Amino acid sequence: MTTAEPTPRRRRGRPGHDQAAILRAAVELFNRKGYDATSMGDLAKELGLTKPAIYHHVTSKEQLLSRALDDALDELTAAVTEASRKEAGTSAYQRLRAVVRRSVEVLVAHQPSVTLLLRVRGNSEVELAALERRRWLDDRLAELVADAAAEGALRADVPPALVSRLLFGMVNSLVEWYRADGAYDTAAVADAVTVIAFDGLARHEPEPPTSQAS
Amino acid sequence: MTTAEPTPRRRRGRPGHDQAAILRAAVELFNRKGYDATSMGDLAKELGLTKPAIYHHVTSKEQLLSRALDDALDELTAAVTEASRKEAGTSAYQRLRAVVRRSVEVLVAHQPSVTLLLRVRGNSEVELAALERRRWLDDRLAELVADAAAEGALRADVPPALVSRLLFGMVNSLVEWYRADGAYDTAAVADAVTVIAFDGLARHEPEPPTSQAS
Repeated sequence: MTTAEPTPRRRRGRPGHDQAAILRAAVELFNRKGYDATSMGDLAKELGLTKPAIYHHVTSKEQLLSRALDDALDELTAAVTEASRKEAGTSAYQRLRAVVRRSVEVLVAHQPSVTLLLRVRGNSEVELAALERRRWLDDRLAELVADAAAEGALRADVPPALVSRLLFGMVNSLVEWYRADGAYDTAAVADAVTVIAFDGLARHEPEPPTSQAS
Repeated sequence: MTTAEPTPRRRRGRPGHDQAAILRAAVELFNRKGYDATSMGDLAKELGLTKPAIYHHVTSKEQLLSRALDDALDELTAAVTEASRKEAGTSAYQRLRAVVRRSVEVLVAHQPSVTLLLRVRGNSEVELAALERRRWLDDRLAELVADAAAEGALRADVPPALVSRLLFGMVNSLVEWYRADGAYDTAAVADAVTVIAFDGLARHEPEPPTSQAS
């Protein structure tokens, strides 16, 4: 709005925008309009920049997507790598419980880019690479569930691969409704997810089996 | 491919397609390409029909969306209405557990249209009406969780509204990976969801509290 502003931060129409701000705006636009439907022109307009000004910071729309997906994946990858490490003194069950909790924290901290990640369908090399990283994470988590089951720490009547899907399905569903400024802080949600998944909601004692059918 | 075929079913390029087949193809296309990016021309091409042939059966793309969203919502609405009925001899806990199970069955039976429903963002009257119906369902389910908690059947340390979100977040996450021809049948998934949510995965006895912090 003003033509001469002394402080460089957050002003519009100038090349002073840093890459992080451009990335943030890009992720927000990709989530709102869809990646394919968003042009660099849209992004420039959103930021009040010219297209050349944007290209001063990033080489392409795909580079922005790539960075956003890395943002979504890097911390999760670190957490899962950590959880997969069979250290003395920790059970697979403890590491699984911890990584479920940690994945809630990572999702909340990187919600816009995780939202984008969960919508990726593999329409380009960048998207395929992200899907490949997701698959690696899923495989490690399924292994961890299987290890915890093998320890005898998990109930034996649900297949580990299915447990892994449902557990992280519950975590991922947070992107649809969680608001950092809403009723629940990260710790409350992380508690709820781990308590529901591992301890169960039911307070009563399990009923004695009355039939063979499940 | 053939120009003269004696049997009318599944042939291409003819107006013999019934509305259900058109709707099925439309939902599949909407999910694959996105609703906004799909034209009636795309749908005609997919079905091997002319556009006038399509318009012989449906009045608009929006009518197809509306029918698809009704398909996703009608049975779920019936199930939730049933579960909300406070009948003698059933606890809220029993009705909640039954409706979680039933919602898995409905999702699996209507997976393409539920997938579409879960992507709706409110860009038109039809989408807003569907979101309104989703909100009604969410509210009934949250009430049911609160009733079950009030009965003392659910653990008291997780807020009922959060429980409801996470429970149905886990159910809804099925649209992302469930395949009817895959490793798990509907009953196995319904069992797994209810067992994880209500009974918990952990086999061990809960550890005695060692600190006040959660």
